[in-house]
Amino acid sequence: MNAKQLPHVVIIGAGFGGLTAAQKLKNAPIRITLIDKNNYHLFQPLLYQVAIAGLLPSQIAYPLRTIFRKQENLTFQMGEVSSIDFASRFVKLNGSVIAYDYLILAVGGETNFFGMDGVKESALQLKDIDSAVNTRNHLLRMFEKASREADAEKRKALLTFVVVGGGPTGVETAGALAELISHVMRKEYPTIDPAETRVLLLEAGNALIASYPDELRRATHRLLSKKNVEIQYNARLTDFNGQRVRLADGTQIMTHTLIWTAGVKAAEITNQLGVRQAGSGRVRVAESLQMPDHPEVYVIGDAAYLENGNGQPLPMLSTVAIQQGNAVAENIRRAVNGQTQKPFHYKDPGLLATIGRNAAVARLWGISFSGLIAWLIWVGLHIYRLIGFRNRLVVLINWAWDYFFYDNQVRLITRE
Amino acid sequence: MNAKQLPHVVIIGAGFGGLTAAQKLKNAPIRITLIDKNNYHLFQPLLYQVAIAGLLPSQIAYPLRTIFRKQENLTFQMGEVSSIDFASRFVKLNGSVIAYDYLILAVGGETNFFGMDGVKESALQLKDIDSAVNTRNHLLRMFEKASREADAEKRKALLTFVVVGGGPTGVETAGALAELISHVMRKEYPTIDPAETRVLLLEAGNALIASYPDELRRATHRLLSKKNVEIQYNARLTDFNGQRVRLADGTQIMTHTLIWTAGVKAAEITNQLGVRQAGSGRVRVAESLQMPDHPEVYVIGDAAYLENGNGQPLPMLSTVAIQQGNAVAENIRRAVNGQTQKPFHYKDPGLLATIGRNAAVARLWGISFSGLIAWLIWVGLHIYRLIGFRNRLVVLINWAWDYFFYDNQVRLITRE
Repeated sequence: MNAKQLPHVVIIGAGFGGLTAAQKLKNAPIRITLIDKNNYHLFQPLLYQVAIAGLLPSQIAYPLRTIFRKQENLTFQMGEVSSIDFASRFVKLNGSVIAYDYLILAVGGETNFFGMDGVKESALQLKDIDSAVNTRNHLLRMFEKASREADAEKRKALLTFVVVGGGPTGVETAGALAELISHVMRKEYPTIDPAETRVLLLEAGNALIASYPDELRRATHRLLSKKNVEIQYNARLTDFNGQRVRLADGTQIMTHTLIWTAGVKAAEITNQLGVRQAGSGRVRVAESLQMPDHPEVYVIGDAAYLENGNGQPLPMLSTVAIQQGNAVAENIRRAVNGQTQKPFHYKDPGLLATIGRNAAVARLWGISFSGLIAWLIWVGLHIYRLIGFRNRLVVLINWAWDYFFYDNQVRLITRE
Repeated sequence: MNAKQLPHVVIIGAGFGGLTAAQKLKNAPIRITLIDKNNYHLFQPLLYQVAIAGLLPSQIAYPLRTIFRKQENLTFQMGEVSSIDFASRFVKLNGSVIAYDYLILAVGGETNFFGMDGVKESALQLKDIDSAVNTRNHLLRMFEKASREADAEKRKALLTFVVVGGGPTGVETAGALAELISHVMRKEYPTIDPAETRVLLLEAGNALIASYPDELRRATHRLLSKKNVEIQYNARLTDFNGQRVRLADGTQIMTHTLIWTAGVKAAEITNQLGVRQAGSGRVRVAESLQMPDHPEVYVIGDAAYLENGNGQPLPMLSTVAIQQGNAVAENIRRAVNGQTQKPFHYKDPGLLATIGRNAAVARLWGISFSGLIAWLIWVGLHIYRLIGFRNRLVVLINWAWDYFFYDNQVRLITRE
C-alpha cells in the first residue's frame, strides 16, 4: 500500500496527551502529522522549578523532532491551527490546509483568571517556558532592587511574594520559593535582612490541596509553615495592580509579585469550534473520547470533559492526559481495523506534591506519606518519568547535582 | 580601620577585564563596588555556540553574586550607569549616586555596523545572550518554515545562511553552522534536500583571519570549504533588508538570514564621557591604563585604546582584557600604597579559532597548528578557562557529552 493511501491522523498538541498518542501509534498502518505551536514537548509539572531558578528550560523541554527522529510514520509541523472544518475534515495551519481522516485534539489548557483582567495583566504565570522564565527574571530582579532600596517600606514590598492558589502547583511554588530565599538568596544578598522577606500563600477555600485526604492537607500545612510560608485561608483575591493585592475582606498586601496558580481552563481554540462545552471551556466527549456527531474526532487531556464513575469531571492532570493518549491510540487502531471503540476509564495513580527539598506529601496505593519519604518517592518518580526520553543521563546528573548541592547556575536575569 | 574609610574602587562592567580586576583585588585593603547591567558574567568567546544551538546560555553565563559570594570586600550592583562625573568622582546608577576613589571603566564593546542602519535592523548579532538566543530561534525557525514551503525559490532563500566577517567569530560561526546543518538538521528535517542549503561567509578583504600567518589562513579556507562553507572574498555588503543581501559589486543574494560579525566598537557610554577617543570610540589611555588628566580613572578591555610596541592598537580580545584586568588591580594596589604605576605590556598568547568539530587553527609558541590537533588544543584551553569558575564539573560533562555525541537538547525555539 502506498504511504499516501494510509489513513491520515492529525494530532494537534504535543503535550502529555498528544505526545503519548503519537508514540503509541508508532507501528500502526497510518500516517501521522503532529502539530504544535512550539518545537518542543514540555514537562509541565516541573515548570515551577524553572520559575524559582531550580532547573533550566532545556532540562524540562525536549525538541519534538529529536523525540520523533526515528518514528517514520510521523511528520512534525510547527505552527498554530487557526481553524478546523469538521464537515470537510481539514485543519488550517500557517495558511495551508491539512486534510485528516482522524483528528486528535490534544490542545491542552491555559491559565484561568476568571475574568479578572487586572490580575491577568500584572500577575506572573507558570504556563509555558516564556512565562516561567519571566517569573524567574522578575523574582531575581526584586532581590536586586531590594538590595539597593533604602526605604524600608518599599524594600518590604519588593520582598513580599504572593502565591495564589492552594492546589499542588501553588503549594510546590510557595515551598520552593521559600527555600530559594532561605538557602540561596540569603547568601547572595548579604545586605538583605531575612526578616523582611515574606512568602504568602493565598487560598480561597479553607484547605490546601483540597482533593487530598485530611491527614495530607494537615501535613502540607505543617511542612509549609515550617519553611516560613504564611498560609491564608478564605483569602479571595479581588484585584492586583502590580503594586498591591486587594482581598475580598478589604485587606491590602503591598507587593510587586503575584504568582497565579489558581485556575486552568481549556485552550482558547475550544471556544471557536462550535462544539458543546462544559465548565472551563472543555469539550464534551463520549466515553470512547470521540466527539459527539464526529466519531473521527477525538479530544483528550485538559481540553476534554468526561466524568468518572461518580459523576465528577476528570481533573486536568498529566496523568489523565497520558492515559487518554494511550486510550485514543488504541481506539484509532481499532477504528482503522473496523473494530468497536473501547470506553476510557481513568485509573487514579495517586497524588504527589513536593514542598521544597526533602519534604513532600503523597497518596499512593491507598497510603498517605509525608515528609522525607514522600519526597524520595517524588524524586524517584520524576526521574523515572524524565528518563523515559532518550539520553537524559547528563541532564539528570546536572539536575541531581543542582538539587542536592544548591549550586545551580540558573539564576540568570536574561531579559527585560 | 573602619570599612567605610577604606578606599572605594568602583568597577563598571563584569566582562573579562572587570571580572579579573575584581578577583585580583580580593585581599586588597579596599572596598569594591562591581556594577554590571546583567547579573552574570558571560564567557563571550563561546556565544556563537549558543547561536548554533550547541550550548545553553547557562553553560557560558555565571551569576556574579555566586562568583563573588565569598569575596567580602566586594558588593555587586546590577544596573546601567547613566553618567559619570570625573570632577566630583561619582557615577550615577539607577537614579542614585555612587562616589569612588578609584574607577575602573571596563564597559566592553558592542557591534559596529559602520552606520548601515538597514543592516543593523535586520541582521542577527552575537553580542549578548539575548541576541544569541534570538539567532538560535531564527535559525531553527528557518528550518521549520522551509520544511513546509512548497515553492523551491522561497525554500532556497529560507535555507541560505549568510555570515558576514572573516575574523575568528565569523569563521567559527560559519563552520559550526555548516556542521549543525550536515549533522543534525538533515536527520531532523528529512523532507529538506541538503543540496538546497547554503552557508556563505562574506569577507570584505582578501583573506580570512587576516592577522594570522599565511599558512593558517590557507588552512582555514581549506577546512571551511571541506565543510561546504562557500567563502566569498572582496564581498562588501551594502544592504540587507531581511529578504536579500546586496553587495557593492551589484550581486544579490536571496536570504532571510545574515549574521553580522564584521565589526566591534567601544560601548556607547564612551561617547558620553567627554574624553579623548581613538578609532571605534575607544578611550585613549596612558601606558599605566590611567585616563589622561584623571589618574584615579582606569580604562581597560575593548573600551580602552592603547598601542603596542609597533604602533598597532591592541586588539579587542578577551586575552587583552584579562591581562589589563590583572595590570589594573596591581596598579590600584600600588596607588593605594603610594607606589608608582607600572606600564602595561601585552603578551600575545597566540591565536586560536575553531572551525566546527575536530577542526581548528592555532598559533601558539610560534608554531602554527591546524586540523584535529589544533582542535584538541582549543577544547583543552576552553575547558581550562571555563573550569576557572567553581564547580563547572557538571556543566563540563554536559558540554563534552553534547559536543561529542551531537545529542544536545538545546534546539528549543523559545520565543517569537
